[in-house]
Amino acid sequence: MSEFSAVELIIAKREKGELSTAQIDWLVANYTSGVVADEQMSAMAMAILLNGMNRREIKDLTMAMIASGERLDFSTLPTTTSDKHSTGGVGDKITLPLAPLVAVFGVAVPQLSGRGLGHTGGTLDKLESIPGWRAALSNAEMHRQLAEVGAVICAAGSGLAPADKKLYALRDVTGTVESIPLIASSIMSKKIAEGTASLVLDVKVGSGAFMKTLDRARELAQTLVALGQDAGVKTSALLTDMSTPLGRKIGNALEVEESVEVLAGGGPADVVDLTVELASEMLRLAGKPDIDVRAALNDGRAMDKWNQMIRAQGGDPNATLPTAKESHVVVAQQDGYVEQVDALAVGIASWRLGAGRARKEDPVQFGAGAVLHVGIGDKVVKGQPLITLLSDDTHRFERALEVLNGNLTVVSQPVEYQRKIVLESIKN
Amino acid sequence: MSEFSAVELIIAKREKGELSTAQIDWLVANYTSGVVADEQMSAMAMAILLNGMNRREIKDLTMAMIASGERLDFSTLPTTTSDKHSTGGVGDKITLPLAPLVAVFGVAVPQLSGRGLGHTGGTLDKLESIPGWRAALSNAEMHRQLAEVGAVICAAGSGLAPADKKLYALRDVTGTVESIPLIASSIMSKKIAEGTASLVLDVKVGSGAFMKTLDRARELAQTLVALGQDAGVKTSALLTDMSTPLGRKIGNALEVEESVEVLAGGGPADVVDLTVELASEMLRLAGKPDIDVRAALNDGRAMDKWNQMIRAQGGDPNATLPTAKESHVVVAQQDGYVEQVDALAVGIASWRLGAGRARKEDPVQFGAGAVLHVGIGDKVVKGQPLITLLSDDTHRFERALEVLNGNLTVVSQPVEYQRKIVLESIKN
Repeated sequence: MSEFSAVELIIAKREKGELSTAQIDWLVANYTSGVVADEQMSAMAMAILLNGMNRREIKDLTMAMIASGERLDFSTLPTTTSDKHSTGGVGDKITLPLAPLVAVFGVAVPQLSGRGLGHTGGTLDKLESIPGWRAALSNAEMHRQLAEVGAVICAAGSGLAPADKKLYALRDVTGTVESIPLIASSIMSKKIAEGTASLVLDVKVGSGAFMKTLDRARELAQTLVALGQDAGVKTSALLTDMSTPLGRKIGNALEVEESVEVLAGGGPADVVDLTVELASEMLRLAGKPDIDVRAALNDGRAMDKWNQMIRAQGGDPNATLPTAKESHVVVAQQDGYVEQVDALAVGIASWRLGAGRARKEDPVQFGAGAVLHVGIGDKVVKGQPLITLLSDDTHRFERALEVLNGNLTVVSQPVEYQRKIVLESIKN
Repeated sequence: MSEFSAVELIIAKREKGELSTAQIDWLVANYTSGVVADEQMSAMAMAILLNGMNRREIKDLTMAMIASGERLDFSTLPTTTSDKHSTGGVGDKITLPLAPLVAVFGVAVPQLSGRGLGHTGGTLDKLESIPGWRAALSNAEMHRQLAEVGAVICAAGSGLAPADKKLYALRDVTGTVESIPLIASSIMSKKIAEGTASLVLDVKVGSGAFMKTLDRARELAQTLVALGQDAGVKTSALLTDMSTPLGRKIGNALEVEESVEVLAGGGPADVVDLTVELASEMLRLAGKPDIDVRAALNDGRAMDKWNQMIRAQGGDPNATLPTAKESHVVVAQQDGYVEQVDALAVGIASWRLGAGRARKEDPVQFGAGAVLHVGIGDKVVKGQPLITLLSDDTHRFERALEVLNGNLTVVSQPVEYQRKIVLESIKN
């Protein structure tokens, strides 16, 4: 490996230059080993955020982060693999019904997930509300479950893309999170190292999402799809609406509950529709187009697979889920129509109620969160419940109500609203 | 002091926002105390480098760095004070004759100087080649010498603008040196904390300078002058040529030698002219315009003041200066005219010969450096000496010759050249 100096590379990117493959390899390897210091990497991250990277540089950065750790290999499985990654939203429990649903059709789903930080929940936090369920699997256990059940949702081991973990923690404290090259390489390094053959990205757009505008979300989606293509992973992306929460239940056990409703053939239309759209796209990429996936939600096949998947990781799918000790109902102050149910506000409220964590070492309350009783456009009468807030601590209600103020509104005149869940798709 | 978060401030600057006075105060105070981490400050420095700061922000940054340490106060001196700061060049020994020259006319010169790093020399390294001379003075000693002699050149104490020292060291390793707001606040925080009533800036332009183009140098000079004005220090700037070395001698003892020639009424015209221009401007700012400063170089008054100044700090002005053990003469390979004597190349050659240091803990060779025998435009004959390289180690000549190759050139056709030393001036 050639020798460079960190300052020289930072200055090159600062002056809008292009970093060579060898330079990016050197930078990532030496940052991982500690030769390149945090203060140098954060200056580089800011230079990348402000001056960008081209497609080749983003691919090189991603491949260098993959090379910093181990890679999983599912090529010995009897079936092909497909995975989904969401950029994070409020009430986004789609992974839960989706993984077993896709597995029903003979495509294995190796879903490595994370815990929540901030207002978007974490898939592992949700599943951990199921008594007995465990997130940590060895690579061998994961492989065996994929072969036997066809679906696994578990914690990513520390061996995958350690450079990404180190860089992500640094970006978090240095104001360098919101960079498309850095976001894209962070997401894709983990997914490529995980070894999935195909990948569908659910890129959220709107107040509750990382990307607030369709333009930025589209740019990220295109970058991710190009990166997947360059790395030999069949990749496509759906841009989906996150201006208002997904489904009616937000919180850990609450989202498991709603997922089970969907797996039982019920549940809110937006959650069902998005699950079906994503499953169809995953199956299409895995070489199985034109499957009636919705049927498997209605006839119990997806639920059977869910039960197997939960039991394989020690969980009891029939156990009673934790509930919050306290509740507070917000009612309509007038007759009228629901004008707004803002995703970010509901996400922050739920987080403040105890469903999320402020620091990564904090615990979550499994029963905390919110249940929406209405959606945008619904006709309501004065005194009708709009949302129920749930928490183990009554003192948390005040700050949750504060953030909902002005973000869950009823007006006199009718509100025209028809939710469009998939806004665009970017396919190879 | 209000509470902010470092990430919030970094993001504000990253998004081209303006930081408030309270935010800048908080940032600098908390960076100095270690609450704001190096990796956060380097991301901020990169954001400032790429997105800039307005005049008010630069002033606030400067004042916050001053507030991080002590301030000197010369208001009890019987005379007013004036100082000069050079952005650094090759062969730039002007401080040595300038300080005693200005002091001749009853204006005290409190010149806090530094050591050299890289290809530009340090004033303290030069003076330390005088046997017995010491750079470290207490504030009381400095004050007494200013009252009794009128001129002092000494090391800046560690108490002045400690935030600047910390930030400068960070910028050096994170590719964030070349930012006008950061350069300007670094220079001016030390000069304002030093307590001078007026200040003349010698902003160098050309290959041997920090600022390679007139436009960049002018922008820096205007920023510095505005900053001085905002902080109540009478400030002006001269933009001066640094495309070819200043004078004929480059190196520590060599530059003392040439300074003494100037103080004796001789010396190279460019060094004399610049010394006179800067002295006249310092005296003008101190309320003494239209003085014939050149006379004091010719009649021995400046030399007398120099001798007093050196003796006051333990030095023997009549002592023999150290000389290098080895020398190597480069001669003209053809008859012709000197086309180029590049400042940067001569500076690096001198540095490689041992006159400068690569790390701040390295020693310097007092006798090392270069003596130019010709200037641009001079007619030469084949075999005539162009430059003499001086070092204690013969093995250093090769790398010095390497950098001179192509940068000290003789061509057949006549070269028109008349050195213009002061390119522009920016005065209040």
